[in-house]
Amino acid sequence: MSDAAPSRPWLLFAITPPRRSTEPAEARRIAERTCARLRDLDLDALVIYDIDDESDRNPHERPFPYLPTLDPGDFAEEHLGSWDRPVIVYRSAGKHDPRALADWFAAQDVRRVRTVLVGASSSDSAVRTTLPEAWRLRREHAPDLATGGVAIPERHASRGGEHERMRAKQAAGASFFVTQVVYDVGAAKSMVSDYHYACGDAGSTTVPVVFTLSVCGSERTLAFLEWLGVHVPTWMRNDLRHTDDPLATSYDQCVAIAEDLAQFCTRHRIPFGFNVESVSIRRAEIEASVRLAAHLRDRLGAGDGAQAAAASAASTPGQPRS
Amino acid sequence: MSDAAPSRPWLLFAITPPRRSTEPAEARRIAERTCARLRDLDLDALVIYDIDDESDRNPHERPFPYLPTLDPGDFAEEHLGSWDRPVIVYRSAGKHDPRALADWFAAQDVRRVRTVLVGASSSDSAVRTTLPEAWRLRREHAPDLATGGVAIPERHASRGGEHERMRAKQAAGASFFVTQVVYDVGAAKSMVSDYHYACGDAGSTTVPVVFTLSVCGSERTLAFLEWLGVHVPTWMRNDLRHTDDPLATSYDQCVAIAEDLAQFCTRHRIPFGFNVESVSIRRAEIEASVRLAAHLRDRLGAGDGAQAAAASAASTPGQPRS
Repeated sequence: MSDAAPSRPWLLFAITPPRRSTEPAEARRIAERTCARLRDLDLDALVIYDIDDESDRNPHERPFPYLPTLDPGDFAEEHLGSWDRPVIVYRSAGKHDPRALADWFAAQDVRRVRTVLVGASSSDSAVRTTLPEAWRLRREHAPDLATGGVAIPERHASRGGEHERMRAKQAAGASFFVTQVVYDVGAAKSMVSDYHYACGDAGSTTVPVVFTLSVCGSERTLAFLEWLGVHVPTWMRNDLRHTDDPLATSYDQCVAIAEDLAQFCTRHRIPFGFNVESVSIRRAEIEASVRLAAHLRDRLGAGDGAQAAAASAASTPGQPRS
Repeated sequence: MSDAAPSRPWLLFAITPPRRSTEPAEARRIAERTCARLRDLDLDALVIYDIDDESDRNPHERPFPYLPTLDPGDFAEEHLGSWDRPVIVYRSAGKHDPRALADWFAAQDVRRVRTVLVGASSSDSAVRTTLPEAWRLRREHAPDLATGGVAIPERHASRGGEHERMRAKQAAGASFFVTQVVYDVGAAKSMVSDYHYACGDAGSTTVPVVFTLSVCGSERTLAFLEWLGVHVPTWMRNDLRHTDDPLATSYDQCVAIAEDLAQFCTRHRIPFGFNVESVSIRRAEIEASVRLAAHLRDRLGAGDGAQAAAASAASTPGQPRS
């Protein structure tokens, strides 16, 4: 078990870059709207996803169409100049040539940029750079770039061993983890528990695990979450389908998940955080996501005694510890 | 959905009859000790299990040896005269001849006795009376005997359809359900959610679902729970194995499970209750079970506003509604 005092929980908010066809002026307006919307959230960092089609992973029809987006690194560099906090730029390793990835790593300002390295969505994908190769390139070209890995509770529940994959990523340089969207809180707790005890057995540090939360305001968003591989427990799915206001129901479910995870991690002194995203682009769902992040900020900031006490030993927000 | 106001939650405590070899005088002393221990709990009923070997269900070695017990009906009748509240006598259908079962049904005082009918532990068992036959005999010989069915969340999680089996038992006469020991609260919520919405779709009443809780104070008890088919989530198993005081950890887990289930059922207006048992005969675990029941009594009795309001419309405690 880690004896380190947990830091104040991280709060991240994740966005998808605009479509690739977006004109620069419009991309800038989108970036400004986004910054304005998120400015008051006191985020530790803004996450920018590197979206993959992923239809090679799932033979079922994608509930929302896949539209190629601007490169998240380009979007951050060219349009998010007015964002005065860190950004976490996702890098989907398989999409990029090793040379391009190495150049990107070398070019980053480590005071402003962090990254998360993502593996291919299926073993059948045409992979330009494998995940281990991406980790190697990052060690070589940007050893000081704080870099996270992806952790998937569903994979732990179905196949086991996700904690070992997390440990391997940590050995490769991961200084934090961001999960897939969590609806199955038991699966997330089991994954982080196995990870925590494995770190204890190995005498190594438990690095922060950031849990991704996303509200669901419609049957279609629910279908998309499940298409993405998120396990939505039967009772939650039932409640979302039988309520007159799925968005309000989902919001309450997300708050309950966050409280359960916060209690669990605090009790075990596991450093943690939350990453809020909206998997849909519907305005009501985006606004509910921002409200959820604000709620977490208020709750985490004005948290219980244990968290307040722990906060005094906190690392600087947005400074993932390696 | 049921529009009926939920009753005050039921509180049951379950015991196993003494070994078959127990002398009558000793059986009486055991009964008296049990009554004295449970008298202050304000129980709605005392449950007496009808223990089956069950080793036909599970090829792995039984962590605690199987010892035949006194018949729970005989034990209740001959030794529990000083227990002045209802008893719920389990009947393991497959163990009994149809004639003996019919006679037992006919002989019961329905003001004092309720029953729960249990099916064979595996389809390979030598079955004297099938479960549907037992339900038929009960309708014929004791139509006024309040009778419950067993509900197994693990079966719902692995195979699905437990809510349909509950609905079929309800059609056969079940006026309440008692679950297998719950450690996987998500599985229990999913089962009861599907059951609740299925009742709503059919326009029928949701009958009370009584969740069984059992503390676990040692690695051996944990092994026994898992042998019995209880799914213990990985994070709970980890915590039980890494703590210096598994009994205290398990007690806290049981309280958290109970609170989660109480909130869930209250929000959905599903009538519910708790049945506390100790699967082990270790004194510390039995005493912790009694404390757990007392805690639930205090918490349920002095429940939140919703429960207090609902209590005014409650059915008489211990009177399962048909």
